Amino acid sequence: MRIEIICTGDEVLTGKIVNTNFTHMTQRLEDVGLSVIWGTTVGDDRASLASAFRLAAGRADAVIVNGGLGPTVDDLSQEIAAEVAGVELVLDSAWLTTMEGFFARRGRQMPPNNTKQAMLPAGSERLDNPVGTACGFALDIAGEGGTARFFFTPGVPRELRRMLEEQIIPRLLARAGTPGVILLKRLHGYGLGESHVDSLLTGVEALAPEGAVKLGFRAHYPQIETKLTVRGADRADALARLAPVEAEVRRRLGNFIVAEDDETLEGVVLAALRQAGFSLALVETFTAGQVAARLAHLPAAEAVFRRGLVARDAAQIATALGITQVGEAAVVAEAARAACGATHGLAVLIALDEGDDRLDLGATIDLAIAIEGRAVTRTTRILGGREWIRLGATELALDCLRRFLHGLPVDERIDFEKR
Amino acid sequence: MRIEIICTGDEVLTGKIVNTNFTHMTQRLEDVGLSVIWGTTVGDDRASLASAFRLAAGRADAVIVNGGLGPTVDDLSQEIAAEVAGVELVLDSAWLTTMEGFFARRGRQMPPNNTKQAMLPAGSERLDNPVGTACGFALDIAGEGGTARFFFTPGVPRELRRMLEEQIIPRLLARAGTPGVILLKRLHGYGLGESHVDSLLTGVEALAPEGAVKLGFRAHYPQIETKLTVRGADRADALARLAPVEAEVRRRLGNFIVAEDDETLEGVVLAALRQAGFSLALVETFTAGQVAARLAHLPAAEAVFRRGLVARDAAQIATALGITQVGEAAVVAEAARAACGATHGLAVLIALDEGDDRLDLGATIDLAIAIEGRAVTRTTRILGGREWIRLGATELALDCLRRFLHGLPVDERIDFEKR
Repeated sequence: MRIEIICTGDEVLTGKIVNTNFTHMTQRLEDVGLSVIWGTTVGDDRASLASAFRLAAGRADAVIVNGGLGPTVDDLSQEIAAEVAGVELVLDSAWLTTMEGFFARRGRQMPPNNTKQAMLPAGSERLDNPVGTACGFALDIAGEGGTARFFFTPGVPRELRRMLEEQIIPRLLARAGTPGVILLKRLHGYGLGESHVDSLLTGVEALAPEGAVKLGFRAHYPQIETKLTVRGADRADALARLAPVEAEVRRRLGNFIVAEDDETLEGVVLAALRQAGFSLALVETFTAGQVAARLAHLPAAEAVFRRGLVARDAAQIATALGITQVGEAAVVAEAARAACGATHGLAVLIALDEGDDRLDLGATIDLAIAIEGRAVTRTTRILGGREWIRLGATELALDCLRRFLHGLPVDERIDFEKR
Repeated sequence: MRIEIICTGDEVLTGKIVNTNFTHMTQRLEDVGLSVIWGTTVGDDRASLASAFRLAAGRADAVIVNGGLGPTVDDLSQEIAAEVAGVELVLDSAWLTTMEGFFARRGRQMPPNNTKQAMLPAGSERLDNPVGTACGFALDIAGEGGTARFFFTPGVPRELRRMLEEQIIPRLLARAGTPGVILLKRLHGYGLGESHVDSLLTGVEALAPEGAVKLGFRAHYPQIETKLTVRGADRADALARLAPVEAEVRRRLGNFIVAEDDETLEGVVLAALRQAGFSLALVETFTAGQVAARLAHLPAAEAVFRRGLVARDAAQIATALGITQVGEAAVVAEAARAACGATHGLAVLIALDEGDDRLDLGATIDLAIAIEGRAVTRTTRILGGREWIRLGATELALDCLRRFLHGLPVDERIDFEKR
């Protein structure tokens, strides 16, 4: 099935806002085994919208249009859809009632211009929006060379996302004649580069029969996400097909898998601390609060995160912790732990190379995790400029803590270090 | 002049990478008074590329194509450009020499497949790439309804950005017959919402004759950028036309302007501390290290940033600072300042409302700045959920410090607070 996406609106066209809706839609469609073949961006302009709709109608089987469903005069999607489809706009009185209820629950009277949002092209199928007043709709539109099913969606990201999941993806899968269900398994990795992961996983797809499992990656330094998309007759069948591939991916990536699906590395660390009744003291230097900022604001972190110290100067750390000198990270981690009565202390001490920022600027990272009577340490170097080092050291610190809490080796070599 | 942008590549089309190149190009073109009317995204597919080039050629006066200039087989831009323009690919031997030098300076032999990057459609004008091996080029291509000038650019963001500034924008301005020069003045604001800034600045454009100055905004919570684009016969003329408008914008936005052009709020704060020989101690709670993370990693911050303390629990703050209780932010700021011998202490204490995250979750923020013998304080409330509060409180803390250092009122009302 040939799918196109049309993003509308002057704000998107002029770059006032970055178009994350496009990326979200294409990612999610890929995740369920559907492919987008063409993307178009046009402004709130009648001629451009009509032309974009006609061209897509002639090229594609299905088209998702994003934006232009609001109550103001520059929201043109319904009107141009009706014009291009050659039908009238008619009032959807059920949606009007829904909208009035939406305002009533907030103790407000619906402004008259919102009525426009309940005017849909005749013959269109309404797509429910449970979180906003912009009702979506689906409609066949003919162009030169063919007819496509159009799905009109709101521009507000959380409204779009819900409508995509609940209304559009099921309809697209049904139209594509995709049998059964499609599941997506995501494994978040840290410590291996994309080409390394790619070569490690060569051939794993063959472990599922009939090409039922598709392997994909999404790299965003310093993490890499491995995605397994599986088709099956039903959920149990899909899981059965996935199982041998997933097990092999886990075996090959091993300790480098840091989180799964909607989890985050920091969430995994926090859960491990919490479930064991542990607490944390933290000392950081050039990461400058970034390690704390990943953890300490999370729900339930208030019960786990005791105290973080940020300083760029070793003497400040020594004074704050009442130690004579800051030589070894293990001494710092233990002093921080003891000072606030935490079960665990983490110290991330970074010595930046001299000189201005540059691509080959490096840093030496001394990291220690202390518990009562014992500490583990790790020393390594990262090259790549100030921001690269900061991102890498923050992730390394959180990952070492995850490894320690899960009983895994803390000093396993990663692709981003030079040693 | 009608300008279109075509972004190419499977990674962009499938959402593996977010297309920031598109946003950057449209923003920069808007900044110099040029408008994009249509955006297209297609993958590394011959038929789609050819069709996209032909459609744009017929609609636009100028087209920027991004991506597809690399050395691998799925980089198709030169080949499809030649095909659609009806010309052959010919070797640009000057560029081949440039590329060989590029590799030689890195002590490497150029791989043979890079030769492909020096094959340009006959009759095209080379666009220099001083930071990579992907040479850009410009070429006229005819479509149904007209002929457009095409500019082919590399997908690597820093290569694209430089080629856009140095090669493409000057050519587009020349083709548009834009006289003289265009300058852009940017003022970064914090504390006022977009519609408020919009209404405050009504009519300022009229202070420059002949519509020489254009006003625009770019909002990214919690900051808003006000942009003044000015045209003039030369730089002096442009500055003269800009002056009365800029002065009036400064007068109307007043203390809410936090930084200008390439400056950042945190950079302005750091510079103010540094120039006066001041130093900083910091205490934060729910912002969880975010205030420190904006400041303490910056070049030269090591001479200014003494110590940051992060804790979610008041008792931890009291113990760390040796005070009996954490009631008032002023006491905390002064204790932190004194503990590390800094000239300035900043405390940002946040009491989150009870309950799960939700859109109307709020927080009370108690903020104090202490210097020896004196403290200023500010107490306010922000509503909008955990992440909104964290972003807002971080910005508020930095801005209060800026105001204090610049001798401005610290408790001026902002649009984001409820009080």
